[in-house]
Amino acid sequence: MEPIADAAITDAAGFSAGAVHAGIKKDGKSLDICIIASDRPATAAGVFTRNKVRAAPVRISEERLRSGRCQALIVNAGNANCCTGERGHADALRMTDLAAAKLGIPVADVIVASTGVIGVHLPMERVESGIGRIELGPNGHDAARAIMTTDLVAKEAGCRVRIGGQTVTIAGIAKGSGMIHPNMATMLGFVATDAAVAPSFLRRAVAEATNGSFNQMTVDGDTSTNDSLVVLANGAAGNTALDGSGPDSRAFAEALTSVCAELAKKIARDGEGATKFIEVVVEGAASIGDARRAAKAVVSSNLVKTAVYGADPNWGRVLCALGYSGAEVEERKVDLRIGDVWLMRGGEIQQFDRAAGVAALKGPDVVIRANLNLGSGKGVAWGCDLTEGYVDINGKYTT
Amino acid sequence: MEPIADAAITDAAGFSAGAVHAGIKKDGKSLDICIIASDRPATAAGVFTRNKVRAAPVRISEERLRSGRCQALIVNAGNANCCTGERGHADALRMTDLAAAKLGIPVADVIVASTGVIGVHLPMERVESGIGRIELGPNGHDAARAIMTTDLVAKEAGCRVRIGGQTVTIAGIAKGSGMIHPNMATMLGFVATDAAVAPSFLRRAVAEATNGSFNQMTVDGDTSTNDSLVVLANGAAGNTALDGSGPDSRAFAEALTSVCAELAKKIARDGEGATKFIEVVVEGAASIGDARRAAKAVVSSNLVKTAVYGADPNWGRVLCALGYSGAEVEERKVDLRIGDVWLMRGGEIQQFDRAAGVAALKGPDVVIRANLNLGSGKGVAWGCDLTEGYVDINGKYTT
Repeated sequence: MEPIADAAITDAAGFSAGAVHAGIKKDGKSLDICIIASDRPATAAGVFTRNKVRAAPVRISEERLRSGRCQALIVNAGNANCCTGERGHADALRMTDLAAAKLGIPVADVIVASTGVIGVHLPMERVESGIGRIELGPNGHDAARAIMTTDLVAKEAGCRVRIGGQTVTIAGIAKGSGMIHPNMATMLGFVATDAAVAPSFLRRAVAEATNGSFNQMTVDGDTSTNDSLVVLANGAAGNTALDGSGPDSRAFAEALTSVCAELAKKIARDGEGATKFIEVVVEGAASIGDARRAAKAVVSSNLVKTAVYGADPNWGRVLCALGYSGAEVEERKVDLRIGDVWLMRGGEIQQFDRAAGVAALKGPDVVIRANLNLGSGKGVAWGCDLTEGYVDINGKYTT
Repeated sequence: MEPIADAAITDAAGFSAGAVHAGIKKDGKSLDICIIASDRPATAAGVFTRNKVRAAPVRISEERLRSGRCQALIVNAGNANCCTGERGHADALRMTDLAAAKLGIPVADVIVASTGVIGVHLPMERVESGIGRIELGPNGHDAARAIMTTDLVAKEAGCRVRIGGQTVTIAGIAKGSGMIHPNMATMLGFVATDAAVAPSFLRRAVAEATNGSFNQMTVDGDTSTNDSLVVLANGAAGNTALDGSGPDSRAFAEALTSVCAELAKKIARDGEGATKFIEVVVEGAASIGDARRAAKAVVSSNLVKTAVYGADPNWGRVLCALGYSGAEVEERKVDLRIGDVWLMRGGEIQQFDRAAGVAALKGPDVVIRANLNLGSGKGVAWGCDLTEGYVDINGKYTT
């Protein structure tokens, strides 16, 4: 598996993309609507938010993906088309109609996603005119920018992996920033691959990749109404279709997870108001589930997040979060360190140099490691610090 | 039931209290250790944190309360005596030994609680000297101040209620401020009553009161390692012991819940960095449990809390939190208003005057009401806004 530098979703063979400024975002210039399309129908799988309040595009896309097939995505930013009633549902359908007509493909093969403010109707005239102006080409970077809301940077990741003698490309984009605490998917993530993959295996691989990536990442603990991850596999690489058996399928699943994990980390790093990226590694848990739960509880804790922001090695807050995570924890067995500074060993407080503890929290990347010494479960979670900037952004976000 | 103005825990007959500055808090002057005692053994019940990392005093007190009996509480602030290993356990036991010897009562009838920083050993010489200097009397207000950490105001509440021809007093104190997201109890709460109550009914009444008060309140989503609520009923009022049957027992349980709810609201109002108190009322839920869960999810949401801080009527965030709360929610049935401003009716967006929406969020008390229109379950939750002040306090809290 070889990461791609400066990856674009259109690096996968047979995929093209295009984006324009339709006027959904209010700044009058930013790209805010895009199409990502395959030159042939692709096997497809997705995961969507578990929030019971679900945006119209989420409901439509989840239903359509039951076919296991998709050829194009139409996505807008600046408006989530959520809590918008029947009109919102009709608007989302209309977006897929327009994209299907433009591309000359069946509307059932078009998936739709939206992100932005909740509870406001889409400006459909602008959307329609925008879709008309989109030009498709090797424009993956534009698509990545067109799905941003309060994101400061575009999130893209990709890799190449040898599968059955062929080189297969997997590349994706994501957006995050706020209302980020995915449960089955992130805010928005789209991955394209030219591998040939059987639908049932693709569904399993997407679930596995999500659990090891987007579901282990948080910005603010709020699971959004629009979380969607969709993966398209169009088979342009010419490999024998992967069915889940053998080392090639394993290699594909791991490569997909690694692309999703890269995107998840980029979302965490660009969390609203964030000044630091936090990685929490929990080892020695009773199970992988426990390890992931414990790591996510620590990286989700407002008290841990503010302590990291203030570079305060107040490690009791980490122990506290491990304790309420739901994972099995025995205090007298816990080892804990921040960076290279040991804070607790076998439940005993370690004398540590406070300056070293502060230094371990000063950099832009903070790593917190706990060993629960109860089993062999390992899990990782990613997040960011909680700052005055987060409060400032979210106290003033325009409804 | 009649609320007591300027209530003190020593308003209940037969109870006395005393507090001194032992030097556990670093400011050299604040009260930081107290004893609350009954003049006779009392029936007692308590609830404690569900965090798996539990402070030494929590473990000791929970064990001792199995007897259903207690006569005195010894409590310190400034140090949580948590993650302090065997030495911490011995220190907590020593605190109860010293209090029992001072009062001339069995050590098994003494409960201990601590609050403050995690992972630091208690300065036991100061603790011992402090306990020696405590003078007991009608000093309930001192006890309320002695359990404060980052609290800005002392939390006290009380009421009188007629029980079987006698006037019974129920009065309590609590401390909160940060690491507040109780699960079975708050950070610290102590309630004294002169009612005579059978142990088994007291346990049920305490559980009921907790579920309708402390468990519906949050500051920052972090369930602490030291949450403890202990209720003492010494029978000095001379009523026939309440056993759970009949209107007197119901009146007592409701009065106890109301005192606990008052304390919980005072904790929410004084949350770290808070500028506003938030009450979320959910009606029409499929069950009381669903209503409480939904209300607590809304008041816990960082995005709702920052929107309230910024007086931004971004009501989509409320819908979003209802949706991920775990409660049954059907978007098309939801009614929602903030203060008197209707935002959604039957799932349809209401046109509202933005200035009125902002005004409803400007005051120090913000009320958010949702009707799920699914059943008759009602629940309330209390919290506070999330501000730069919270970040500032918790980025700099000294380890």
